[in-house]
Amino acid sequence: MAQDLRSQEFTNPIDIAEYLFKRLKQVGVQSIHGVPGDYNLVALDYIAKNGLHWVGNCNELNAAYAADGYARITTNGKGCAALVTTFGVGELSAVNGIAGSYSEYVPVVHIVGYPTTTAQKNGLLLHHTLGNGDFHVFSKMSAQISCAVSMLNDPHEAAVLIDNAIRECILQSRPVYIGLPSDMVTKKVEGDRLNTPLDLDFPPNDPEKEDYVVDVCLKYLHEARNPVILVDACAIRHRALKETHDFIVKSGIPVFVAPMGKGAVDESHPTYGGVYAGNGSNKGVQERVESADLVLSIGAIKSDFNTAGFTYRLSQLKTIDFHSYGVTVRYSEYPGVRMNGVLSKITSRLGKLNIESGPSPTNTIPSTQNSSDQTITQAWFWPRLGQWLQPSDVVITETGTSNFGIWETRFPKDVTAISQVLWGSIGYATGACQGAALAVKEQNQQNNTKRRTILFTGDGSFQLTAQELSTMIRNKLNPIIFILCNNGYTIERLIHGMNDPYNDVQEWKYKDLPAAFGGKEGEDVLTYRVETKEEVEKLFEDQVFVSGETKQLRFVELVMPWDDAPEALKKVAESAAKRNV
Amino acid sequence: MAQDLRSQEFTNPIDIAEYLFKRLKQVGVQSIHGVPGDYNLVALDYIAKNGLHWVGNCNELNAAYAADGYARITTNGKGCAALVTTFGVGELSAVNGIAGSYSEYVPVVHIVGYPTTTAQKNGLLLHHTLGNGDFHVFSKMSAQISCAVSMLNDPHEAAVLIDNAIRECILQSRPVYIGLPSDMVTKKVEGDRLNTPLDLDFPPNDPEKEDYVVDVCLKYLHEARNPVILVDACAIRHRALKETHDFIVKSGIPVFVAPMGKGAVDESHPTYGGVYAGNGSNKGVQERVESADLVLSIGAIKSDFNTAGFTYRLSQLKTIDFHSYGVTVRYSEYPGVRMNGVLSKITSRLGKLNIESGPSPTNTIPSTQNSSDQTITQAWFWPRLGQWLQPSDVVITETGTSNFGIWETRFPKDVTAISQVLWGSIGYATGACQGAALAVKEQNQQNNTKRRTILFTGDGSFQLTAQELSTMIRNKLNPIIFILCNNGYTIERLIHGMNDPYNDVQEWKYKDLPAAFGGKEGEDVLTYRVETKEEVEKLFEDQVFVSGETKQLRFVELVMPWDDAPEALKKVAESAAKRNV
Repeated sequence: MAQDLRSQEFTNPIDIAEYLFKRLKQVGVQSIHGVPGDYNLVALDYIAKNGLHWVGNCNELNAAYAADGYARITTNGKGCAALVTTFGVGELSAVNGIAGSYSEYVPVVHIVGYPTTTAQKNGLLLHHTLGNGDFHVFSKMSAQISCAVSMLNDPHEAAVLIDNAIRECILQSRPVYIGLPSDMVTKKVEGDRLNTPLDLDFPPNDPEKEDYVVDVCLKYLHEARNPVILVDACAIRHRALKETHDFIVKSGIPVFVAPMGKGAVDESHPTYGGVYAGNGSNKGVQERVESADLVLSIGAIKSDFNTAGFTYRLSQLKTIDFHSYGVTVRYSEYPGVRMNGVLSKITSRLGKLNIESGPSPTNTIPSTQNSSDQTITQAWFWPRLGQWLQPSDVVITETGTSNFGIWETRFPKDVTAISQVLWGSIGYATGACQGAALAVKEQNQQNNTKRRTILFTGDGSFQLTAQELSTMIRNKLNPIIFILCNNGYTIERLIHGMNDPYNDVQEWKYKDLPAAFGGKEGEDVLTYRVETKEEVEKLFEDQVFVSGETKQLRFVELVMPWDDAPEALKKVAESAAKRNV
Repeated sequence: MAQDLRSQEFTNPIDIAEYLFKRLKQVGVQSIHGVPGDYNLVALDYIAKNGLHWVGNCNELNAAYAADGYARITTNGKGCAALVTTFGVGELSAVNGIAGSYSEYVPVVHIVGYPTTTAQKNGLLLHHTLGNGDFHVFSKMSAQISCAVSMLNDPHEAAVLIDNAIRECILQSRPVYIGLPSDMVTKKVEGDRLNTPLDLDFPPNDPEKEDYVVDVCLKYLHEARNPVILVDACAIRHRALKETHDFIVKSGIPVFVAPMGKGAVDESHPTYGGVYAGNGSNKGVQERVESADLVLSIGAIKSDFNTAGFTYRLSQLKTIDFHSYGVTVRYSEYPGVRMNGVLSKITSRLGKLNIESGPSPTNTIPSTQNSSDQTITQAWFWPRLGQWLQPSDVVITETGTSNFGIWETRFPKDVTAISQVLWGSIGYATGACQGAALAVKEQNQQNNTKRRTILFTGDGSFQLTAQELSTMIRNKLNPIIFILCNNGYTIERLIHGMNDPYNDVQEWKYKDLPAAFGGKEGEDVLTYRVETKEEVEKLFEDQVFVSGETKQLRFVELVMPWDDAPEALKKVAESAAKRNV
């Protein structure tokens, strides 16, 4: 009765859960990740009903990783990902994944099914609680790793809270937490609000302030004789790729990327010079960048692994830093001026630069060795991979040998790279692969394209989240998965305990897992094992294996020596080991 | 140099990490669970060196579950379990498992490897951080689910903090968090402290207060004509089983257990009456308990699932509640008087009781049906299991059909039951089985016994943490594992969405997993599939399968109808569904 009265307040009353999922659909979410639990079951009914796809992950951490991977594919279009877990047990399992999204600026909406508002008020001794009647403890934990926490405890606020949460998620590019009590799912809100799409544009900079900053930047730019552009993760995560690209093309300035910036720029562009990471760079790159008289740094995250152990040698006196939250020119700070507006104005007002001829950017990637040794070494594999990749591939590399090895891989145009260099949670990549492959599948269907999703993970890392292979099979995804079989946690060995048994892992028969997870060989999955360079070459020429149109998930055991690692990883590990004592 | 000077402060200087692991060994920890990470690697060196075993779990959540299972086996001897994770990524992955231990009073020492104190002070932008220089955020999250947080940032405090943390962990029977920065691992503390063992006895009650409470209890006890004893989880978790047992035997009062109290009392004792859970009880049990004129309730946790949806009909006017933190007689509260002392004094002063003949406790377990239908039903299986179990078995049941089904299983003497009725995180049981089986193996070796560890989990639940099967194989454990194959999340189906696809799971070939995880059939593992009652009977008679001396892990696919559930679960699910709207 009370419900009926409330409904009359609205022209077009709809259920809160319907409103939530419709809003998510409006911002481009097509699939919802997560695991069912009794406090979210009623809400799950609204997913299929509103034309969304339920992924059904094996566990919540994997679901959170997957949502992160999904979001990294969809964010170019102002999108995000969504994840549903259940109160207490489910949400806490997801916390590490959400923290990774927070750390690395990935927009994920985390919807947590709560006990009813009445149960909360009465402090009932329910399952999935700490037994102390405190229903706030878990949201307080998540508040540390969310840019907004919205508890939908009151139908009057629900629609506004949902709109704000999704907007903050996308604009700040960070996770938000939405608590949805099970008795609120069917409460009514005004459906007509949905006719006004959310405003997801970045608020423009103050024009006078922006002009001022642009003038300062242009002054230094025109004085510079051998400037370089250095592009990093936040250019991707804060959606400044178009502005960055336009600036690169128009200015003709040599461009380099930090490891976390891999995939941000067109690596086939003639002014692309390679990966800069201080002492972890290839020699030509390091000299070129560090001898520049001006570094235009776009979206930098100067973390240990991204700078090969804080080994940048770039003077702040020669640096302009462009960020989502402001611009810094030498030591002059201009907070509140977003890079996007500044960069596009600089490009449009660029004029003629006075770039003297200097060392031109070189392709520093060593050519494939033609040695007779057939062992698949890290030094051989990663450059070779660059020649095999196709434009628009999505390349996911796990924290470990893969995300350091990929520094040596020159990407074709429009490759999207996914890795978690700052947060660095091993196991992430396999979960992220599920989400990315799903987002790619959706985009392929929409755009009639044939993009591929390709995962590189190690055997040690794969063991943490292996069951998400099952979710990929269940969702009929077709990524190409390489398991680098090298008998354990190689990145840890290099830091400490090279031969210690704690860095070993149980030896699995990886190739048998897809079948154990219910995937039919030939129909759902194709499995391979390669132990020599020749076998890699053969695989790379296998048209069924290679094609983006192949329907089957492809799963490769790629055997590498247990003690081999990319040069960059060796340097970073050495520096990490030093910092640990 | 500074180090050398400090060492001279001590008679017997030893490294902090050595001190920590030696203390853990002193309280009975023989194995350390966890996953390596670069901030804990140096500490891991001290594990083998101090005669401890490193388990090497596949991921941290599973490790936390395993530590919980290990602790539940060792706590009878005032023990605990220990878990090592790495800062940020590792510890957050474990949080759900630790929260479960907190909720259910299980003593787990969570050791987190931290970046150096210098890196923390300087707020370095390290991997595994949120990128904001805040090194306290994760310990603050864990503070919500730990009874002590000890940051070992200063060698002068380290030994005291370690001692306090381990002591609190065991006395409060809850998790503690120890942050160990990598530069502190080798700092020196006074090793001679180890010559004084930790005092792990509960502080005695104030004798006058205790006498007073005992007199009040005895008064009501002597007035009672048909009292009952009701034993619940906290009698187990707070180590009052001996006092409870003595009281049961000497008093002759009929005894019942709550679901979470399964395994607390000798179910073969003549006065044992069955499981009481309000409306979820068998009929005879419910009548007998609810018609009692006095209920002696020991260690109650009156949560929804433990009371079949808050359906106890026991008047507080007829109840004496014994707890770790106090005693309540009717509405009179006596805080600070621990049940252990009170119970043993009551037993010793019991005198003659005036128990009138009333309904004597009945074995309410229905006899095995001899129907011609060969389908393995829940109603048939669980009572049948009771006849097959052996004294001293460890029986682990997953949240779902198993932990409700087990209500119908009458245990032989000295069975230890492990399930997570309050926290109820699915996936827990498989992890806990690894820890329990390891603790049992250690005890079997020490005591020359042949106890078995037996796991019952569902297919849906198993998928969350399946890779811990690999850890069991790696550690050469020999539990008997039953996967109840019924195509999905049956407990969720009963609550909401009986036929909805979100309650389905991918169909795995479960029996193929041990081999994929590197277990050799016949050598490491024996696998089985049973689809009929006859096949169950045959399996139960197979001496290799049955024996506690069999070295191999035994893995059984037990096929049950997808929509079948124990009666108790049906009632609880119905009540949960009602509370969700």
